[in-house]
Amino acid sequence: MHFEAALPLRSGASVRAYDLSYETYGTLNADKSNAVLICHALNASHHVAGVYLDATGAVQPKSEGWWDTMIGPGKPVDTDRFFVIGVNNLGSCFGSTGPMQINPDTQQIYGADFPVVTVEDWVDAQARLLDALGIKTLAAVMGGSLGGMQALAWTLQYPDRVRHAVVVASAPNLNAENIAFNEVARRAITTDPDFHGGHFYRHGVLPRRGLRIARMIGHITYLSDDVMNEKFGRELAPKPVAPTLVASRTALPPGGALRLRPGEAGSAAPVGGENSSARAYLYSTQDVEFQIESYLRYQGDKFSEYFDANTYLLITRALDYFDPAGTYGGNLSQALAKASAKFLLVSFTTDWRFAPARSREIVKALLDNQRDVSYAEIDAPHGHDAFLLEDPRYLSVVRTYFNSKVAA
Amino acid sequence: MHFEAALPLRSGASVRAYDLSYETYGTLNADKSNAVLICHALNASHHVAGVYLDATGAVQPKSEGWWDTMIGPGKPVDTDRFFVIGVNNLGSCFGSTGPMQINPDTQQIYGADFPVVTVEDWVDAQARLLDALGIKTLAAVMGGSLGGMQALAWTLQYPDRVRHAVVVASAPNLNAENIAFNEVARRAITTDPDFHGGHFYRHGVLPRRGLRIARMIGHITYLSDDVMNEKFGRELAPKPVAPTLVASRTALPPGGALRLRPGEAGSAAPVGGENSSARAYLYSTQDVEFQIESYLRYQGDKFSEYFDANTYLLITRALDYFDPAGTYGGNLSQALAKASAKFLLVSFTTDWRFAPARSREIVKALLDNQRDVSYAEIDAPHGHDAFLLEDPRYLSVVRTYFNSKVAA
Repeated sequence: MHFEAALPLRSGASVRAYDLSYETYGTLNADKSNAVLICHALNASHHVAGVYLDATGAVQPKSEGWWDTMIGPGKPVDTDRFFVIGVNNLGSCFGSTGPMQINPDTQQIYGADFPVVTVEDWVDAQARLLDALGIKTLAAVMGGSLGGMQALAWTLQYPDRVRHAVVVASAPNLNAENIAFNEVARRAITTDPDFHGGHFYRHGVLPRRGLRIARMIGHITYLSDDVMNEKFGRELAPKPVAPTLVASRTALPPGGALRLRPGEAGSAAPVGGENSSARAYLYSTQDVEFQIESYLRYQGDKFSEYFDANTYLLITRALDYFDPAGTYGGNLSQALAKASAKFLLVSFTTDWRFAPARSREIVKALLDNQRDVSYAEIDAPHGHDAFLLEDPRYLSVVRTYFNSKVAA
Repeated sequence: MHFEAALPLRSGASVRAYDLSYETYGTLNADKSNAVLICHALNASHHVAGVYLDATGAVQPKSEGWWDTMIGPGKPVDTDRFFVIGVNNLGSCFGSTGPMQINPDTQQIYGADFPVVTVEDWVDAQARLLDALGIKTLAAVMGGSLGGMQALAWTLQYPDRVRHAVVVASAPNLNAENIAFNEVARRAITTDPDFHGGHFYRHGVLPRRGLRIARMIGHITYLSDDVMNEKFGRELAPKPVAPTLVASRTALPPGGALRLRPGEAGSAAPVGGENSSARAYLYSTQDVEFQIESYLRYQGDKFSEYFDANTYLLITRALDYFDPAGTYGGNLSQALAKASAKFLLVSFTTDWRFAPARSREIVKALLDNQRDVSYAEIDAPHGHDAFLLEDPRYLSVVRTYFNSKVAA
């Protein structure tokens, strides 16, 4: 969807002549009352559910939407019933206007000049998309992690346009440790000599080293200590067959120990095993010794192939900045007084990035305002990643909420 | 102390003609029974206590030993009573032979060719130092974190030479998350273009970018979530006056970027400068916005000025490799059967790097062997860093142990 009019941003800057990529699933009903907006987190996109087909009509491998366990026909967010909208946020790198696109004012690639966008800005942009689709009121807005922050922001910026907000594995703001992890990841990117102050495109290079490190750090924080020990423990990686293994991933066994996808750490079988556990230490500081190292390097390599470095900076900054209580002297109850939606909040016991206590802060603030709030704390081992995984209790909570409350 | 004879290492390699830097405090008694060996962790040295004087006899600023709260005259480890030895480990960068020194076999700087050293190798090297000092048996061996691993290893490699082991904020091995953080830090260093495969000395450069990132990651894991929130919270850093900021702001619409929204400077963060708490967001992805960012950048910068990159790799690898239960199929009780020393273990409730549960594993394994074990779990807010800080309960536990058990 193209938008010609400038969107004013919280920074004071604005973006004009921008596009938003979006997908819809299901059918908008006659009174346009069954729309559910899905907000994405750091590295996700508008492709929230379903698969893509190739020219022959065959399913493209690994093309499932990032919340395909949650959204689809007969699924907890049932697209036989709801009209679901996925939208890629402004500044991201999956089709919506962002740092990799041309700045209409200069005819140069934006790069580091793409303005800083906030959660509130994204919500404004999403509201314009709904306007264009003729949707006045959302049956629900829903998201996990940073997506949950957007869902919460919707209830504050457009209280009349949201009947329900589903906020999963989220927080009312980042704490110091969260910001710290973001900052280290950003510094890894910005100090990569190939970053060129964010204008690497015009140098024909990509700051892949920095992106790899950023992603490795991220991955550690997405997983719980427990699940890491269960999946990887101190298991040794298969002994490298050539000293070039580290540099060249083609040397790795196809589909072998490294088949985990981001967010999938809990759903696949334990890695490693037979041929690796018996070997002795390599006594090397630079080669892969442990499975966890192999996993992280692989995740970092993969991420650095498809994700834009400036987008990484922008989205982590949007996380840092979000703080609805900030304008109320830290008083979240006052900040949330504006919200009139009904809420479902979900957290996961082993999520140390956005711990249950952070969700409970939101619950408390809403209850202080006598809002209608449901809250589920799921005893799941997978850490922050749990919000993307197929946990029956979690999916059942969301299903029940949509069936009994949103569809009511 | 110079050692001419080659020291065989666990890797199969060896080091010959090496030096160990060490300091001693107090007086060795006539029967040489009052020696206490202090083992250091990642970035510390042989300088465990006291201060250095300059040529005029004045105290050099910031020259206190890293465990000066613990060790000295009248302190918990009382140097009026005990002969305390601090030794810089092989491969470190504070005077003992390491990657920055000349390899006697090649007459080149070792760099990445310095052999991988393990906790067990360090203990062997420390034992040779004791031999040279004429000390057969230690009253106690003591260390925190990686130093605690050395203390534990002493009781297994030289059970007859250790009467007491004091193991603080340590673990019987690293878990997957610990290894993961080490690996990200190492990758930041080794992928720094100035690393040159570890032979940066001959290129006249230092991989400071990587060291900075490594240190920033480390710092996050040393602190607890709680203490980070208390010290930094979401407090904004003082507004920078750097010309880069001015330049980037001029690209934005006049007045826009700095538009102040009431209270936007963040929630009620308890600490911070008068001139920082009132300012608005800068809306920048690359400038320092929050205090925690400023703190981490400072720590990273400082560290990168004095610490050797190859030493960082070696020492984190020594951490990764330590696993006394490894040769017993993971059975720590069997592994610790060899130990005959008496033990004091101390852990800190908010230490998520080496959590109390990890110390309790050691306690349990020792009790399985009917060993004499004291254990204190200190309710301290400071995370892993607590082992270096002046906590009265912690210091009192150690003092009592030394007075009632070690000196008995």
